[in-house]
Amino acid sequence: MGTTPRELAGAACSAPGPLNHISGIVYDAPNINGFADVHLAAGLTQALGVAVFLDRDTIMAAIGEGVAGAAKGVRDFVYVTISTGIGGALVSGGRMLRGVSNIAGEIGHWPVALEGPRCGCGSYGCVESLAAGRFLAEAYGVDDAARVYAAAASGDPRAVAIIARAEAALGNLAITLVNGLNPSLIVVGGSVAEHEPAHTIEPMRRAIDTRAFRVAADAVRLVPPGLGRDVGMLGAVISARERLAGRGGWFL
Amino acid sequence: MGTTPRELAGAACSAPGPLNHISGIVYDAPNINGFADVHLAAGLTQALGVAVFLDRDTIMAAIGEGVAGAAKGVRDFVYVTISTGIGGALVSGGRMLRGVSNIAGEIGHWPVALEGPRCGCGSYGCVESLAAGRFLAEAYGVDDAARVYAAAASGDPRAVAIIARAEAALGNLAITLVNGLNPSLIVVGGSVAEHEPAHTIEPMRRAIDTRAFRVAADAVRLVPPGLGRDVGMLGAVISARERLAGRGGWFL
Repeated sequence: MGTTPRELAGAACSAPGPLNHISGIVYDAPNINGFADVHLAAGLTQALGVAVFLDRDTIMAAIGEGVAGAAKGVRDFVYVTISTGIGGALVSGGRMLRGVSNIAGEIGHWPVALEGPRCGCGSYGCVESLAAGRFLAEAYGVDDAARVYAAAASGDPRAVAIIARAEAALGNLAITLVNGLNPSLIVVGGSVAEHEPAHTIEPMRRAIDTRAFRVAADAVRLVPPGLGRDVGMLGAVISARERLAGRGGWFL
Repeated sequence: MGTTPRELAGAACSAPGPLNHISGIVYDAPNINGFADVHLAAGLTQALGVAVFLDRDTIMAAIGEGVAGAAKGVRDFVYVTISTGIGGALVSGGRMLRGVSNIAGEIGHWPVALEGPRCGCGSYGCVESLAAGRFLAEAYGVDDAARVYAAAASGDPRAVAIIARAEAALGNLAITLVNGLNPSLIVVGGSVAEHEPAHTIEPMRRAIDTRAFRVAADAVRLVPPGLGRDVGMLGAVISARERLAGRGGWFL
Protein backbone atom coordinates (compact mmCIF):
# COMPACT_ATOMS: atom_id res chain seq x y z
CA MET A 1 0.00 0.00 0.00
CA GLY A 2 2.82 2.36 -0.82
CA THR A 3 4.74 1.78 2.41
CA THR A 4 8.43 1.03 2.00
CA PRO A 5 10.60 -0.87 4.50
CA ARG A 6 12.38 2.40 5.32
CA GLU A 7 9.15 3.80 6.74
CA LEU A 8 8.65 0.84 9.06
CA ALA A 9 10.30 0.50 12.47
CA GLY A 10 9.51 -3.19 12.59
CA ALA A 11 7.04 -5.87 11.66
CA ALA A 12 5.18 -8.48 13.68
CA CYS A 13 4.73 -12.13 12.91
CA SER A 14 2.23 -14.18 14.86
CA ALA A 15 2.63 -17.96 14.59
CA PRO A 16 1.38 -21.11 16.30
CA GLY A 17 3.64 -22.54 18.99
CA PRO A 18 5.72 -23.99 20.32
CA LEU A 19 8.19 -21.32 19.31
CA ASN A 20 10.99 -19.22 20.80
CA HIS A 21 10.30 -15.50 20.45
CA ILE A 22 13.95 -14.65 21.20
CA SER A 23 15.64 -16.98 18.71
CA GLY A 24 12.75 -16.55 16.27
CA ILE A 25 12.42 -20.28 15.68
CA VAL A 26 9.12 -22.17 15.37
CA TYR A 27 9.84 -25.62 16.81
CA ASP A 28 7.04 -27.93 15.74
CA ALA A 29 3.51 -26.69 15.26
CA PRO A 30 1.16 -29.61 16.05
CA ASN A 31 -1.44 -28.76 13.44
CA ILE A 32 0.77 -27.73 10.49
CA ASN A 33 2.56 -30.62 8.80
CA GLY A 34 6.25 -30.02 8.15
CA PHE A 35 6.34 -26.67 9.94
CA ALA A 36 9.21 -27.61 12.25
CA ASP A 37 12.42 -25.85 13.30
CA VAL A 38 11.68 -22.96 10.96
CA HIS A 39 13.85 -19.85 11.41
CA LEU A 40 10.83 -17.70 10.73
CA ALA A 41 11.91 -14.34 12.17
CA ALA A 42 15.29 -14.40 10.40
CA GLY A 43 13.75 -15.42 7.08
CA LEU A 44 11.09 -12.72 7.23
CA THR A 45 13.57 -10.07 8.38
CA GLN A 46 15.73 -10.84 5.35
CA ALA A 47 12.77 -10.87 2.98
CA LEU A 48 11.17 -7.66 4.28
CA GLY A 49 14.26 -5.65 5.13
CA VAL A 50 12.94 -4.68 8.57
CA ALA A 51 13.20 -6.25 12.01
CA VAL A 52 10.49 -8.89 12.41
CA PHE A 53 9.25 -9.71 15.89
CA LEU A 54 7.97 -13.26 16.08
CA ASP A 55 5.81 -14.52 18.90
CA ARG A 56 3.17 -17.11 19.61
CA ASP A 57 -0.26 -16.03 18.38
CA THR A 58 -1.80 -16.40 21.81
CA ILE A 59 0.97 -14.47 23.57
CA MET A 60 0.57 -11.61 21.11
CA ALA A 61 -3.19 -11.64 21.71
CA ALA A 62 -2.59 -11.60 25.47
CA ILE A 63 -0.19 -8.67 25.21
CA GLY A 64 -2.78 -6.84 23.12
CA GLU A 65 -5.44 -7.50 25.75
CA GLY A 66 -3.07 -6.50 28.56
CA VAL A 67 -1.97 -3.25 26.94
CA ALA A 68 -5.17 -2.11 25.26
CA GLY A 69 -7.97 -4.64 25.80
CA ALA A 70 -10.02 -6.28 28.52
CA ALA A 71 -6.98 -6.97 30.71
CA LYS A 72 -5.58 -3.44 30.70
CA GLY A 73 -4.13 -2.78 34.16
CA VAL A 74 -4.72 -6.37 35.30
CA ARG A 75 -1.68 -8.07 36.81
CA ASP A 76 -2.94 -11.66 36.95
CA PHE A 77 -4.77 -12.82 33.87
CA VAL A 78 -4.95 -15.60 31.35
CA TYR A 79 -5.72 -15.46 27.67
CA VAL A 80 -7.45 -18.52 26.23
CA THR A 81 -8.38 -19.10 22.61
CA ILE A 82 -10.90 -21.78 21.64
CA SER A 83 -10.82 -22.08 17.88
CA THR A 84 -9.47 -24.65 15.39
CA GLY A 85 -7.02 -25.40 18.19
CA ILE A 86 -6.85 -24.35 21.83
CA GLY A 87 -4.08 -22.20 23.21
CA GLY A 88 -3.29 -19.49 25.67
CA ALA A 89 -0.87 -17.29 27.52
CA LEU A 90 -0.32 -16.85 31.25
CA VAL A 91 0.34 -13.52 32.96
CA SER A 92 1.15 -13.62 36.67
CA GLY A 93 2.22 -10.68 38.82
CA GLY A 94 2.30 -8.49 35.72
CA ARG A 95 4.68 -10.72 33.80
CA MET A 96 4.20 -12.97 30.82
CA LEU A 97 5.30 -16.43 31.87
CA ARG A 98 7.89 -17.64 29.37
CA GLY A 99 9.72 -20.54 30.98
CA VAL A 100 13.28 -21.63 30.45
CA SER A 101 12.94 -22.26 26.71
CA ASN A 102 10.22 -19.67 26.08
CA ILE A 103 7.39 -22.06 25.40
CA ALA A 104 5.41 -21.71 28.64
CA GLY A 105 1.65 -21.32 28.41
CA GLU A 106 0.89 -24.14 25.97
CA ILE A 107 -2.37 -24.77 27.79
CA GLY A 108 -4.08 -26.45 24.84
CA HIS A 109 -1.79 -29.38 25.51
CA TRP A 110 -2.64 -29.73 29.16
CA PRO A 111 -3.99 -33.25 29.61
CA VAL A 112 -7.39 -33.03 31.31
CA ALA A 113 -8.42 -36.66 30.84
CA LEU A 114 -6.75 -40.00 31.50
CA GLU A 115 -7.51 -41.15 27.98
CA GLY A 116 -8.76 -39.76 24.71
CA PRO A 117 -8.01 -39.47 21.00
CA ARG A 118 -4.49 -38.84 19.75
CA CYS A 119 -3.68 -35.11 19.70
CA GLY A 120 -1.78 -33.31 16.94
CA CYS A 121 1.08 -32.91 19.43
CA GLY A 122 1.47 -36.69 19.75
CA SER A 123 -0.03 -36.94 23.23
CA TYR A 124 -3.61 -37.76 24.26
CA GLY A 125 -6.09 -36.33 26.71
CA CYS A 126 -5.06 -32.75 25.78
CA VAL A 127 -7.90 -30.27 26.13
CA GLU A 128 -7.28 -29.34 22.48
CA SER A 129 -7.91 -32.91 21.33
CA LEU A 130 -11.18 -33.02 23.27
CA ALA A 131 -12.62 -29.55 22.73
CA ALA A 132 -11.04 -27.66 19.82
CA GLY A 133 -13.06 -27.12 16.65
CA ARG A 134 -10.91 -29.30 14.45
CA PHE A 135 -11.17 -32.26 16.82
CA LEU A 136 -14.92 -31.91 17.38
CA ALA A 137 -15.40 -32.10 13.62
CA GLU A 138 -13.04 -35.08 13.34
CA ALA A 139 -14.75 -36.94 16.16
CA TYR A 140 -18.13 -36.52 14.46
CA GLY A 141 -16.77 -37.19 10.97
CA VAL A 142 -17.53 -33.81 9.38
CA ASP A 143 -15.34 -30.93 8.28
CA ASP A 144 -16.70 -28.12 10.45
CA ALA A 145 -17.38 -27.95 14.18
CA ALA A 146 -20.50 -25.86 13.49
CA ARG A 147 -22.16 -29.00 12.13
CA VAL A 148 -21.46 -30.86 15.38
CA TYR A 149 -23.04 -28.10 17.46
CA ALA A 150 -26.03 -28.04 15.07
CA ALA A 151 -26.43 -31.82 15.33
CA ALA A 152 -26.22 -31.64 19.12
CA ALA A 153 -28.85 -28.89 19.16
CA SER A 154 -31.19 -31.11 17.17
CA GLY A 155 -30.69 -33.90 19.69
CA ASP A 156 -28.33 -36.26 17.88
CA PRO A 157 -26.98 -38.39 20.75
CA ARG A 158 -23.49 -38.86 19.28
CA ALA A 159 -23.05 -35.11 18.80
CA VAL A 160 -24.47 -34.44 22.27
CA ALA A 161 -21.88 -36.80 23.78
CA ILE A 162 -19.00 -35.19 21.88
CA ILE A 163 -20.06 -31.70 22.99
CA ALA A 164 -20.59 -32.86 26.58
CA ARG A 165 -17.05 -34.27 26.65
CA ALA A 166 -15.71 -31.00 25.21
CA GLU A 167 -17.51 -29.02 27.88
CA ALA A 168 -16.10 -31.27 30.61
CA ALA A 169 -12.61 -30.83 29.20
CA LEU A 170 -12.99 -27.03 29.09
CA GLY A 171 -14.25 -27.13 32.68
CA ASN A 172 -11.09 -28.95 33.76
CA LEU A 173 -8.97 -26.42 31.88
CA ALA A 174 -10.73 -23.54 33.63
CA ILE A 175 -10.25 -25.08 37.09
CA THR A 176 -6.58 -25.75 36.36
CA LEU A 177 -6.13 -22.08 35.46
CA VAL A 178 -7.99 -20.84 38.54
CA ASN A 179 -6.46 -23.19 41.14
CA GLY A 180 -3.04 -22.92 39.51
CA LEU A 181 -2.65 -19.25 38.63
CA ASN A 182 -5.42 -17.59 40.69
CA PRO A 183 -6.03 -14.89 38.07
CA SER A 184 -8.57 -12.08 38.39
CA LEU A 185 -9.48 -12.32 34.70
CA ILE A 186 -9.68 -14.98 32.00
CA VAL A 187 -10.11 -13.53 28.51
CA VAL A 188 -11.66 -16.16 26.26
CA GLY A 189 -11.25 -15.57 22.53
CA GLY A 190 -11.35 -17.66 19.38
CA SER A 191 -14.05 -18.41 16.84
CA VAL A 192 -15.60 -21.37 18.67
CA ALA A 193 -15.88 -19.38 21.91
CA GLU A 194 -17.35 -16.45 19.98
CA HIS A 195 -20.01 -18.56 18.22
CA GLU A 196 -20.76 -21.03 21.00
CA PRO A 197 -20.40 -19.22 24.35
CA ALA A 198 -23.08 -21.44 25.91
CA HIS A 199 -20.91 -24.49 25.18
CA THR A 200 -17.53 -22.92 26.02
CA ILE A 201 -17.47 -19.90 28.34
CA GLU A 202 -20.56 -20.97 30.27
CA PRO A 203 -19.38 -24.49 31.19
CA MET A 204 -16.01 -22.98 32.15
CA ARG A 205 -17.80 -20.56 34.50
CA ARG A 206 -19.93 -23.35 35.96
CA ALA A 207 -16.90 -25.56 36.58
CA ILE A 208 -15.07 -22.73 38.34
CA ASP A 209 -18.11 -21.85 40.45
CA THR A 210 -18.78 -25.42 41.56
CA ARG A 211 -15.34 -27.05 41.70
CA ALA A 212 -12.50 -24.51 42.10
CA PHE A 213 -11.31 -23.17 45.46
CA ARG A 214 -13.92 -20.68 46.67
CA VAL A 215 -11.49 -17.79 47.24
CA ALA A 216 -10.02 -18.21 43.75
CA ALA A 217 -13.44 -18.69 42.11
CA ASP A 218 -14.79 -15.52 43.73
CA ALA A 219 -11.80 -13.53 42.45
CA VAL A 220 -12.04 -14.35 38.74
CA ARG A 221 -14.17 -13.10 35.84
CA LEU A 222 -14.44 -14.60 32.34
CA VAL A 223 -14.85 -12.13 29.49
CA PRO A 224 -14.51 -12.00 25.69
CA PRO A 225 -11.53 -10.11 24.23
CA GLY A 226 -11.76 -6.33 24.53
CA LEU A 227 -10.09 -6.10 21.12
CA GLY A 228 -12.79 -8.29 19.59
CA ARG A 229 -12.16 -10.78 16.84
CA ASP A 230 -9.16 -8.78 15.61
CA VAL A 231 -7.35 -9.48 18.88
CA GLY A 232 -4.77 -11.62 17.06
CA MET A 233 -3.77 -8.99 14.51
CA LEU A 234 -4.00 -6.03 16.88
CA GLY A 235 -2.09 -8.01 19.50
CA ALA A 236 0.70 -8.68 17.01
CA VAL A 237 1.07 -4.99 16.20
CA ILE A 238 0.95 -3.98 19.86
CA SER A 239 3.47 -6.71 20.76
CA ALA A 240 5.96 -5.54 18.14
CA ARG A 241 5.58 -1.97 19.37
CA GLU A 242 6.16 -3.12 22.96
CA ARG A 243 9.32 -5.00 21.99
CA LEU A 244 10.62 -2.04 19.97
CA ALA A 245 10.17 -0.01 23.16
CA GLY A 246 12.24 -2.54 25.08
CA ARG A 247 9.33 -4.03 27.02
CA GLY A 248 9.97 -7.57 26.01
CA GLY A 249 9.49 -9.64 29.11
CA TRP A 250 6.94 -7.91 31.29
CA PHE A 251 4.52 -5.22 30.43
CA LEU A 252 2.47 -4.29 33.46
CA MET B 1 14.83 -24.79 75.12
CA GLY B 2 15.72 -21.62 77.01
CA THR B 3 15.05 -19.26 74.12
CA THR B 4 12.82 -16.34 74.96
CA PRO B 5 10.68 -14.37 72.51
CA ARG B 6 13.03 -11.41 72.92
CA GLU B 7 15.84 -13.44 71.35
CA LEU B 8 13.78 -14.30 68.28
CA ALA B 9 13.43 -12.02 65.27
CA GLY B 10 10.45 -13.97 64.05
CA ALA B 11 8.84 -17.36 63.75
CA ALA B 12 7.58 -19.38 60.81
CA CYS B 13 4.34 -21.26 60.50
CA SER B 14 3.80 -23.69 57.67
CA ALA B 15 0.20 -24.71 57.00
CA PRO B 16 -1.83 -26.44 54.32
CA GLY B 17 -3.56 -24.18 51.81
CA PRO B 18 -5.45 -22.46 50.53
CA LEU B 19 -4.20 -19.59 52.63
CA ASN B 20 -3.16 -15.96 52.26
CA HIS B 21 0.40 -15.38 53.48
CA ILE B 22 -0.14 -11.60 53.62
CA SER B 23 -3.35 -11.55 55.67
CA GLY B 24 -2.24 -14.65 57.60
CA ILE B 25 -5.59 -16.41 57.10
CA VAL B 26 -6.03 -20.10 56.30
CA TYR B 27 -9.17 -20.27 54.16
CA ASP B 28 -10.35 -23.86 54.06
CA ALA B 29 -7.90 -26.75 54.19
CA PRO B 30 -9.45 -29.65 52.25
CA ASN B 31 -8.11 -32.42 54.49
CA ILE B 32 -8.59 -30.86 57.94
CA ASN B 33 -12.20 -30.68 59.10
CA GLY B 34 -13.22 -27.33 60.55
CA PHE B 35 -9.94 -25.61 59.76
CA ALA B 36 -11.49 -22.72 57.85
CA ASP B 37 -11.02 -18.95 57.89
CA VAL B 38 -8.52 -19.25 60.73
CA HIS B 39 -6.51 -16.09 61.51
CA LEU B 40 -3.49 -18.25 62.19
CA ALA B 41 -0.64 -15.72 61.91
CA ALA B 42 -2.34 -13.19 64.16
CA GLY B 43 -3.24 -15.81 66.77
CA LEU B 44 0.27 -17.23 66.87
CA THR B 45 1.88 -13.79 66.92
CA GLN B 46 -0.21 -12.93 69.97
CA ALA B 47 0.51 -16.24 71.68
CA LEU B 48 4.26 -16.22 71.01
CA GLY B 49 5.03 -12.54 71.30
CA VAL B 50 7.03 -12.47 68.06
CA ALA B 51 6.13 -11.85 64.43
CA VAL B 52 4.88 -15.10 62.87
CA PHE B 53 5.24 -15.56 59.13
CA LEU B 54 2.58 -17.88 57.79
CA ASP B 55 2.80 -19.50 54.39
CA ARG B 56 1.64 -22.59 52.58
CA ASP B 57 3.75 -25.64 53.41
CA THR B 58 4.64 -26.24 49.77
CA ILE B 59 5.59 -22.62 49.13
CA MET B 60 7.89 -22.65 52.14
CA ALA B 61 9.46 -25.88 50.90
CA ALA B 62 9.92 -24.33 47.45
CA ILE B 63 11.55 -21.23 48.90
CA GLY B 64 13.87 -23.47 50.90
CA GLU B 65 14.79 -25.41 47.76
CA GLY B 66 15.25 -22.18 45.78
CA VAL B 67 17.44 -20.50 48.38
CA ALA B 68 19.45 -23.44 49.70
CA GLY B 69 18.39 -26.69 48.02
CA ALA B 70 18.21 -28.39 44.65
CA ALA B 71 16.75 -25.30 42.93
CA LYS B 72 19.38 -22.83 44.12
CA GLY B 73 20.00 -20.37 41.27
CA VAL B 74 17.21 -21.85 39.15
CA ARG B 75 14.75 -19.28 37.81
CA ASP B 76 12.04 -21.61 36.51
CA PHE B 77 11.17 -24.49 38.79
CA VAL B 78 8.29 -26.27 40.41
CA TYR B 79 8.08 -27.91 43.80
CA VAL B 80 5.74 -30.89 44.04
CA THR B 81 4.95 -32.89 47.14
CA ILE B 82 3.37 -36.35 46.91
CA SER B 83 2.39 -37.36 50.41
CA THR B 84 -0.90 -37.69 52.32
CA GLY B 85 -2.06 -35.01 49.90
CA ILE B 86 -0.52 -33.52 46.77
CA GLY B 87 0.56 -29.91 46.52
CA GLY B 88 3.13 -27.64 45.06
CA ALA B 89 4.47 -24.20 44.32
CA LEU B 90 5.31 -22.55 41.00
CA VAL B 91 8.36 -20.37 40.38
CA SER B 92 8.60 -18.68 36.98
CA GLY B 93 11.20 -16.14 35.91
CA GLY B 94 12.59 -16.14 39.46
CA ARG B 95 9.29 -15.28 41.09
CA MET B 96 6.95 -17.27 43.24
CA LEU B 97 3.57 -17.18 41.52
CA ARG B 98 1.01 -15.93 44.02
CA GLY B 99 -2.03 -14.83 42.05
CA VAL B 100 -4.52 -12.14 42.90
CA SER B 101 -5.62 -13.67 46.24
CA ASN B 102 -2.33 -15.39 47.03
CA ILE B 103 -3.48 -18.95 46.53
CA ALA B 104 -1.80 -19.76 43.20
CA GLY B 105 -0.01 -23.08 42.84
CA GLU B 106 -2.67 -25.38 44.28
CA ILE B 107 -1.63 -28.05 41.81
CA GLY B 108 -2.97 -30.94 43.85
CA HIS B 109 -6.41 -29.71 42.83
CA TRP B 110 -5.75 -29.64 39.14
CA PRO B 111 -8.29 -31.94 37.54
CA VAL B 112 -6.45 -34.47 35.39
CA ALA B 113 -9.39 -36.77 34.68
CA LEU B 114 -12.95 -36.23 33.45
CA GLU B 115 -14.30 -38.26 36.34
CA GLY B 116 -13.14 -39.77 39.60
CA PRO B 117 -13.84 -39.96 43.32
CA ARG B 118 -14.87 -36.92 45.30
CA CYS B 119 -11.86 -34.92 46.49
CA GLY B 120 -11.47 -33.33 49.92
CA CYS B 121 -11.81 -29.95 48.18
CA GLY B 122 -15.32 -30.81 46.93
CA SER B 123 -14.33 -31.33 43.31
CA TYR B 124 -13.47 -34.56 41.47
CA GLY B 125 -10.75 -35.65 39.09
CA CYS B 126 -8.10 -33.74 41.12
CA VAL B 127 -4.68 -35.35 40.94
CA GLU B 128 -4.74 -35.46 44.75
CA SER B 129 -7.91 -37.55 44.78
CA LEU B 130 -6.36 -40.02 42.32
CA ALA B 131 -2.76 -40.26 43.50
CA ALA B 132 -2.21 -38.97 47.04
CA GLY B 133 -1.47 -41.44 49.82
CA ARG B 134 -4.68 -40.85 51.72
CA PHE B 135 -6.82 -41.46 48.65
CA LEU B 136 -4.93 -44.57 47.53
CA ALA B 137 -5.58 -46.06 50.96
CA GLU B 138 -9.25 -45.04 50.87
CA ALA B 139 -9.73 -46.47 47.38
CA TYR B 140 -8.32 -49.82 48.51
CA GLY B 141 -10.06 -49.75 51.88
CA VAL B 142 -7.01 -49.70 54.14
CA ASP B 143 -5.48 -47.03 56.34
CA ASP B 144 -2.03 -46.73 54.79
CA ALA B 145 -0.94 -46.28 51.17
CA ALA B 146 2.06 -48.55 51.81
CA ARG B 147 -0.36 -51.50 51.97
CA VAL B 148 -1.74 -50.63 48.54
CA TYR B 149 1.74 -50.56 47.03
CA ALA B 150 2.55 -53.86 48.74
CA ALA B 151 -0.64 -55.46 47.43
CA ALA B 152 0.11 -54.19 43.94
CA ALA B 153 3.63 -55.58 44.15
CA SER B 154 2.19 -58.99 45.01
CA GLY B 155 -0.06 -58.81 41.97
CA ASP B 156 -3.45 -58.00 43.49
CA PRO B 157 -5.39 -56.74 40.45
CA ARG B 158 -7.47 -54.17 42.35
CA ALA B 159 -4.35 -52.61 43.87
CA VAL B 160 -2.56 -52.73 40.51
CA ALA B 161 -5.45 -50.82 38.92
CA ILE B 162 -5.47 -48.17 41.67
CA ILE B 163 -1.72 -47.63 41.35
CA ALA B 164 -1.91 -47.55 37.54
CA ARG B 165 -4.56 -44.85 37.74
CA ALA B 166 -2.41 -42.90 40.23
CA GLU B 167 0.58 -43.13 37.89
CA ALA B 168 -1.52 -41.90 34.95
CA ALA B 169 -2.76 -38.97 37.04
CA LEU B 170 0.79 -38.05 38.08
CA GLY B 171 1.83 -38.26 34.42
CA ASN B 172 -0.87 -35.75 33.48
CA LEU B 173 0.23 -33.48 36.32
CA ALA B 174 3.84 -33.60 35.11
CA ILE B 175 2.88 -32.79 31.51
CA THR B 176 0.70 -29.91 32.68
CA LEU B 177 3.65 -28.48 34.59
CA VAL B 178 6.06 -28.90 31.68
CA ASN B 179 3.80 -27.64 28.86
CA GLY B 180 2.39 -24.90 31.07
CA LEU B 181 5.39 -23.53 32.96
CA ASN B 182 8.35 -24.89 30.95
CA PRO B 183 10.56 -25.23 34.05
CA SER B 184 14.14 -26.45 34.03
CA LEU B 185 13.63 -28.34 37.28
CA ILE B 186 10.86 -30.15 39.11
CA VAL B 187 11.71 -30.96 42.71
CA VAL B 188 9.55 -33.86 43.89
CA GLY B 189 9.27 -34.27 47.65
CA GLY B 190 6.86 -35.94 50.06
CA SER B 191 6.80 -39.29 51.78
CA VAL B 192 5.07 -41.22 48.99
CA ALA B 193 7.55 -39.93 46.40
CA GLU B 194 10.43 -40.76 48.76
CA HIS B 195 9.28 -44.34 49.37
CA GLU B 196 7.84 -45.14 45.94
CA PRO B 197 9.92 -43.28 43.33
CA ALA B 198 9.26 -46.05 40.77
CA HIS B 199 5.52 -45.33 41.06
CA THR B 200 5.74 -41.53 41.27
CA ILE B 201 8.85 -39.83 39.88
CA GLU B 202 9.46 -42.49 37.20
CA PRO B 203 5.98 -42.37 35.62
CA MET B 204 6.17 -38.55 35.71
CA ARG B 205 9.47 -38.71 33.81
CA ARG B 206 8.07 -41.20 31.31
CA ALA B 207 4.98 -39.07 30.67
CA ILE B 208 7.12 -35.98 30.09
CA ASP B 209 9.49 -37.85 27.77
CA THR B 210 6.74 -39.39 25.65
CA ARG B 211 3.93 -36.81 25.72
CA ALA B 212 5.16 -33.27 26.51
CA PHE B 213 6.51 -30.85 23.91
CA ARG B 214 10.00 -32.02 22.95
CA VAL B 215 11.75 -28.69 23.62
CA ALA B 216 10.18 -28.44 27.07
CA ALA B 217 10.79 -32.11 27.90
CA ASP B 218 14.47 -31.81 26.96
CA ALA B 219 14.85 -28.78 29.23
CA VAL B 220 13.54 -30.26 32.47
CA ARG B 221 15.00 -32.53 35.17
CA LEU B 222 13.13 -34.21 38.03
CA VAL B 223 15.02 -34.49 41.32
CA PRO B 224 14.34 -35.14 45.02
CA PRO B 225 14.60 -32.21 47.45
CA GLY B 226 18.14 -31.02 48.12
CA LEU B 227 17.07 -30.34 51.71
CA GLY B 228 15.92 -33.94 52.08
CA ARG B 229 12.95 -34.95 54.14
CA ASP B 230 13.32 -31.89 56.36
CA VAL B 231 12.55 -29.64 53.41
CA GLY B 232 9.28 -28.54 55.01
CA MET B 233 10.80 -27.41 58.30
CA LEU B 234 13.98 -25.96 56.81
CA GLY B 235 11.89 -24.23 54.14
CA ALA B 236 9.75 -22.62 56.82
CA VAL B 237 12.78 -21.22 58.62
CA ILE B 238 14.38 -19.99 55.40
CA SER B 239 11.08 -18.43 54.28
CA ALA B 240 10.69 -16.50 57.50
CA ARG B 241 14.28 -15.27 57.21
CA GLU B 242 13.63 -14.18 53.61
CA ARG B 243 10.52 -12.25 54.61
CA LEU B 244 12.32 -10.62 57.53
CA ALA B 245 14.88 -9.49 54.96
CA GLY B 246 12.10 -7.99 52.87
CA ARG B 247 12.27 -10.56 50.08
CA GLY B 248 8.64 -11.52 50.22
CA GLY B 249 7.55 -11.78 46.64
CA TRP B 250 10.47 -12.90 44.57
CA PHE B 251 13.69 -14.39 45.70
CA LEU B 252 15.90 -15.16 42.73
